[in-house]
Amino acid sequence: MSESNGEIGVGMVGHAFMGAVHSQAWRNVHRFFEVPLTPRLAALCGRDESRAKEAAAKYGWAGVETDWRTLVERDDVGLVDVCTPGDTHAEIAIAALTAGKHVLCEKPLANTVAEAEAMAAAAERAAARGVRSMVAFNYRRVPALALARKLVEDGRIGEVRHVRAVYLQDWLSDPAAPMTWRLRKEKAGSGALGDLGAHIVDAAQWVVGDLITGVSALSETFVRERPDGEGTGQVTVDDAALFLARFAGGAVGTFEATRYALGRKNAMRLEVNGSRGSLAFDFESMNELSFFDGDAPGAEAGFRRILATEPDHPYVGAWWPPGHLLGYEHTFTHEVADLLTAIGTGTDPAPSFADGLRVQRVLAAVEDSAAHSATWTPVGG
Amino acid sequence: MSESNGEIGVGMVGHAFMGAVHSQAWRNVHRFFEVPLTPRLAALCGRDESRAKEAAAKYGWAGVETDWRTLVERDDVGLVDVCTPGDTHAEIAIAALTAGKHVLCEKPLANTVAEAEAMAAAAERAAARGVRSMVAFNYRRVPALALARKLVEDGRIGEVRHVRAVYLQDWLSDPAAPMTWRLRKEKAGSGALGDLGAHIVDAAQWVVGDLITGVSALSETFVRERPDGEGTGQVTVDDAALFLARFAGGAVGTFEATRYALGRKNAMRLEVNGSRGSLAFDFESMNELSFFDGDAPGAEAGFRRILATEPDHPYVGAWWPPGHLLGYEHTFTHEVADLLTAIGTGTDPAPSFADGLRVQRVLAAVEDSAAHSATWTPVGG
Amino acid sequence: MSESNGEIGVGMVGHAFMGAVHSQAWRNVHRFFEVPLTPRLAALCGRDESRAKEAAAKYGWAGVETDWRTLVERDDVGLVDVCTPGDTHAEIAIAALTAGKHVLCEKPLANTVAEAEAMAAAAERAAARGVRSMVAFNYRRVPALALARKLVEDGRIGEVRHVRAVYLQDWLSDPAAPMTWRLRKEKAGSGALGDLGAHIVDAAQWVVGDLITGVSALSETFVRERPDGEGTGQVTVDDAALFLARFAGGAVGTFEATRYALGRKNAMRLEVNGSRGSLAFDFESMNELSFFDGDAPGAEAGFRRILATEPDHPYVGAWWPPGHLLGYEHTFTHEVADLLTAIGTGTDPAPSFADGLRVQRVLAAVEDSAAHSATWTPVGG
Amino acid sequence: MSESNGEIGVGMVGHAFMGAVHSQAWRNVHRFFEVPLTPRLAALCGRDESRAKEAAAKYGWAGVETDWRTLVERDDVGLVDVCTPGDTHAEIAIAALTAGKHVLCEKPLANTVAEAEAMAAAAERAAARGVRSMVAFNYRRVPALALARKLVEDGRIGEVRHVRAVYLQDWLSDPAAPMTWRLRKEKAGSGALGDLGAHIVDAAQWVVGDLITGVSALSETFVRERPDGEGTGQVTVDDAALFLARFAGGAVGTFEATRYALGRKNAMRLEVNGSRGSLAFDFESMNELSFFDGDAPGAEAGFRRILATEPDHPYVGAWWPPGHLLGYEHTFTHEVADLLTAIGTGTDPAPSFADGLRVQRVLAAVEDSAAHSATWTPVGG
Repeated sequence: MSESNGEIGVGMVGHAFMGAVHSQAWRNVHRFFEVPLTPRLAALCGRDESRAKEAAAKYGWAGVETDWRTLVERDDVGLVDVCTPGDTHAEIAIAALTAGKHVLCEKPLANTVAEAEAMAAAAERAAARGVRSMVAFNYRRVPALALARKLVEDGRIGEVRHVRAVYLQDWLSDPAAPMTWRLRKEKAGSGALGDLGAHIVDAAQWVVGDLITGVSALSETFVRERPDGEGTGQVTVDDAALFLARFAGGAVGTFEATRYALGRKNAMRLEVNGSRGSLAFDFESMNELSFFDGDAPGAEAGFRRILATEPDHPYVGAWWPPGHLLGYEHTFTHEVADLLTAIGTGTDPAPSFADGLRVQRVLAAVEDSAAHSATWTPVGG
Repeated sequence: MSESNGEIGVGMVGHAFMGAVHSQAWRNVHRFFEVPLTPRLAALCGRDESRAKEAAAKYGWAGVETDWRTLVERDDVGLVDVCTPGDTHAEIAIAALTAGKHVLCEKPLANTVAEAEAMAAAAERAAARGVRSMVAFNYRRVPALALARKLVEDGRIGEVRHVRAVYLQDWLSDPAAPMTWRLRKEKAGSGALGDLGAHIVDAAQWVVGDLITGVSALSETFVRERPDGEGTGQVTVDDAALFLARFAGGAVGTFEATRYALGRKNAMRLEVNGSRGSLAFDFESMNELSFFDGDAPGAEAGFRRILATEPDHPYVGAWWPPGHLLGYEHTFTHEVADLLTAIGTGTDPAPSFADGLRVQRVLAAVEDSAAHSATWTPVGG
Repeated sequence: MSESNGEIGVGMVGHAFMGAVHSQAWRNVHRFFEVPLTPRLAALCGRDESRAKEAAAKYGWAGVETDWRTLVERDDVGLVDVCTPGDTHAEIAIAALTAGKHVLCEKPLANTVAEAEAMAAAAERAAARGVRSMVAFNYRRVPALALARKLVEDGRIGEVRHVRAVYLQDWLSDPAAPMTWRLRKEKAGSGALGDLGAHIVDAAQWVVGDLITGVSALSETFVRERPDGEGTGQVTVDDAALFLARFAGGAVGTFEATRYALGRKNAMRLEVNGSRGSLAFDFESMNELSFFDGDAPGAEAGFRRILATEPDHPYVGAWWPPGHLLGYEHTFTHEVADLLTAIGTGTDPAPSFADGLRVQRVLAAVEDSAAHSATWTPVGG
Repeated sequence: MSESNGEIGVGMVGHAFMGAVHSQAWRNVHRFFEVPLTPRLAALCGRDESRAKEAAAKYGWAGVETDWRTLVERDDVGLVDVCTPGDTHAEIAIAALTAGKHVLCEKPLANTVAEAEAMAAAAERAAARGVRSMVAFNYRRVPALALARKLVEDGRIGEVRHVRAVYLQDWLSDPAAPMTWRLRKEKAGSGALGDLGAHIVDAAQWVVGDLITGVSALSETFVRERPDGEGTGQVTVDDAALFLARFAGGAVGTFEATRYALGRKNAMRLEVNGSRGSLAFDFESMNELSFFDGDAPGAEAGFRRILATEPDHPYVGAWWPPGHLLGYEHTFTHEVADLLTAIGTGTDPAPSFADGLRVQRVLAAVEDSAAHSATWTPVGG
């Protein structure tokens, strides 16, 4: 049975980078969190059987499938975890939801708004039957960012005026770096925009508690051909995407996603300035949140570096004593803990596919604007 | 005589914040730099005689004038320093140049492109007669930024791909902060854009050694009425201006100027990512430059915090031992040292009025784009 | 069998904080590292059976024992992991080694030099029979610190002149914080000295590649009574220990361990200054190493922040892409990976019990000096 | 007259580094601060007349003297500023005080306790006649450190438990750096100890508001011979001095002064941990104070970076807007502003010669302890 004796069978599609880190979360979540359901790593799915078997052995999955259609129909699978490139998300996730399986889907939700709409609709129908779905914007589960969200919710930042979000990596700085599926539009949908931009759009909208209503954007591909086996391949996605944004509540923002910021390895940064306070975060120091409390007396005011490792910080109580840092992988453990809790308690987890669709609409508006000389482009919906 | 016995008579128009810091530079420059001409603080000009006299006494000026027209005609004045609001720059500077006086003019060069064009033309005519002019983009004289420029010039950054520039202050965060001339379009030309944006546009173009060719912009006025004596006054300038930019050489950039970034006091920040290296600077730590050398072996690479206080850093040899920091005012001392050297050696100083005009054209394109829904707007010229 | 089919049975004594983090390492090490032996979590040992069973279930151990004597004799246990308070280390570890079990022992190795000597002797005898032992100075397995060690080894720091090491926590700042075994001399041996000081003594000696030859020390107990159930208990250990040190190679150092540095949560910091370079590390930013390369041209020199998350940094290749941070727990995964590799390849792992003894001798000299008005005290050996 | 028409004639002995920075302060103090007396730069004194004249011209002094005895007797000199090496402080300062001149004396106050005692006694006698004296511990005038002092005074740090003070420079790291008077005991009294250690002893005692009662110390001379013209000269002072300390109020501390901390240019750092709060300061970021407020709710607590550039921070109101940084030289401007105010208002300025003597006694205890194997040495007095 997929959910019985307090267990839930998990089937994971894809076993590259995301598969590895999701596996770690599924294997360990119940060792730290009081989840109502313990995950059983039922099967991992990959098209090449021998590679799938190798991955299953390495990551601790009981079996393998080579066709995701079989996986989503297995009786012993109650939850499908979609870790494939974006072009397959819609088909797999909708099939799984239709089959009555809970779904965790990697971000961006899809490669197009149409796919994302179909997915959100499927998720809504499934929810009516008690089937849950979540899109894997794992940065919502960084304790320091969850604390940021809480400070905004508690009114400590006041009316938000400025958002400044960048996601900087540098692995394409070198023109000799090889081709990958991430550089092909038909697989990845977009480049830095969907891979990195999706994270900061979701994080910004979530932390601020507001939606982007319009954008003006430009994008650039700095290196258009890359080595691919013996020859070269065409890069058909953006290397960098930049945009200005307005939020419904009146805030203005700048966003930038790039893989060419030499020296920045995973600088997912978010700054928020409001009428009462300000926030600053950088994933390269992911255990820290900078908070400026505008209510403090002027002579004592300053950005305080909160080491978000105290027991009363979000998620941290499950782990180690203060100052004993968490890392990247723990955001996934938190994610599946929340998902399992939602399933077990019969509630809808967040971020939902509808949240994923909202991000997708922003990305689509960005692409549209960039394709039309940065023309101001309202976010659809 | 205006220039005799190694001295040059200086006349300064305006005596508010800029007047105070310029005075400090004029009084002390020759104590640290081997300048060919020693400044004599001949006269300070202000419309209210008693206030002008008070300022002259405080700042060390020999006399006062209440009409700048008289000042620029004085025989004992060889250099006119324009520290007034932007609406008067063109008239004063052109008159001074016409009268054969060297001119130092505060930034932004003017309130309109037309004024700036007239000023640049006057400067060019004057230069043909050996009369020099400089626009006071003092941040070019921060040693750490001058070092940044040098690293780009030396090819250490390679081909520039990304520019990220913000200038964040917070003195308008409080809606109860009072009106000032800086919030009136007819005096200041624009708000955060001209006051702060001008600095980062000049700094970015200078450090990168390239020009912005087009922009997409938005601006916002968060608080439209402010206390003004007994009533309230209308704020007629932008509180914040944000724009995307493309550079002639292929780089893309984001720019933001605001007076609402609560907790940021003078965060003039510049980041540059190139194919060989990266740079990061924040004026709130103005003695430091962060430099990532992409040529270093991967395992040893990292942003290095260069404390730009070594004798072989620009301007620093004139001052104190390593680690004995310089401050804001010293950028002005460096500025007038360079100007006096240019005058004394018969060369044209930089940034020229033509450089100021280039900045003005970017600001005008930003205003234009912001007024037309962020439409992509080429920079005129 | 304890070692068969590529597996090794592990028995862990103790299941508090250290037990939890060791369990996580044992459960996951083979998912990331190519270890010659896969750990099988055979049994966890705790005196209270029901609490031991609860812990075993939570942490994934197959069974429990309530007497460590039984555990160390079990046929299916090939490795004993000692996570108990220091007063029991010697007895358990020596019994395990005598029984032919490999041993991982938490730090400090023991509560006295005599115990540590007996342990080191037992370890040496065991090693002759192919039985391995390691003391759990996990900070040697922080990638950034392992990189520090490598830079010293490669000669990049030159002749070491200064060592500056502190380990700052603040959980006793509040006089109302309750008693624990860590505050009783008979259980813990010492206070901040053994708990925190042991780490920085080992880390300093290891990174520098040199031994401390003498110390001058003082210690202090700021709060001598603490709430303990209904009454109060006597604190019989040091709250803070500070000492000066000389190294065999000529370097001088300052060391400080305290639990009263309000606001510092786990600030295990190490600074090294040599004739060619300098290093700085702070565990609160554990993914970073600051390195000053004295060979760089003066105008470009600066402490570089190396984000030690590159594939060619120690241990990192097994994990995530650059910039995707590791946390506290991963140091233990690295530790057991190294131990399993040593066992599998028939080599002696480090840090050995002899290394632990060397640390113990420094701690003893510190206690001695502190008890005798900071008299200079050579480190025995 | 020495004090008339609101002016005071200043005579300065010595014109090297300290003379340059003192001159800048005397020339400009009244441009920023409302001082009751305006300094008139009457005469600079140096033994070599032509070099003295050159310095006087450069720094703006009206005349020169070649014998300090003549200077201190001049009628137009009301204040003597002693900027010479430490071996001459006592003789000059006592003569000046005896002649009824106010005295500003560079630190350390003297080279021996006996000299310092004589100076403090002379200062006390002079004070009875309205003649003022101050020792130039300029770091008390760093706004961020003055704010630190205020926070302690206001009880925000609570009972102080830990002091951690280092003063790190690196100009002797290179064994080829040449001899200077600073490396000869007969001129400088001591090496890093008197030059750098004196600053951190004074700063620590002042910020904490408590006195050091005993020390255990070691010192080291890493390079004993240095190039000196054509040959080599003996270094007869310490290159580094380290000590443990106890304060009267129960705090414990570590102190370190060195000129061999490669990469640290002027890292005068002070950390204080108390029962209610903590402070951290580093002169290399001299405009910042880090303050941990232990009264803040745990989840919001963190070290806040206070940019000490607000109008209500000590000394700052006289200068520029927030975020427009001050530098090293301004500490001297603040110092002479305070001294002139004290003279004008008939009060005794701080730090007094008695404060300087207190520091001297600590330095003497450190030397004593270091000479006797780190034996615990009470501070005399």
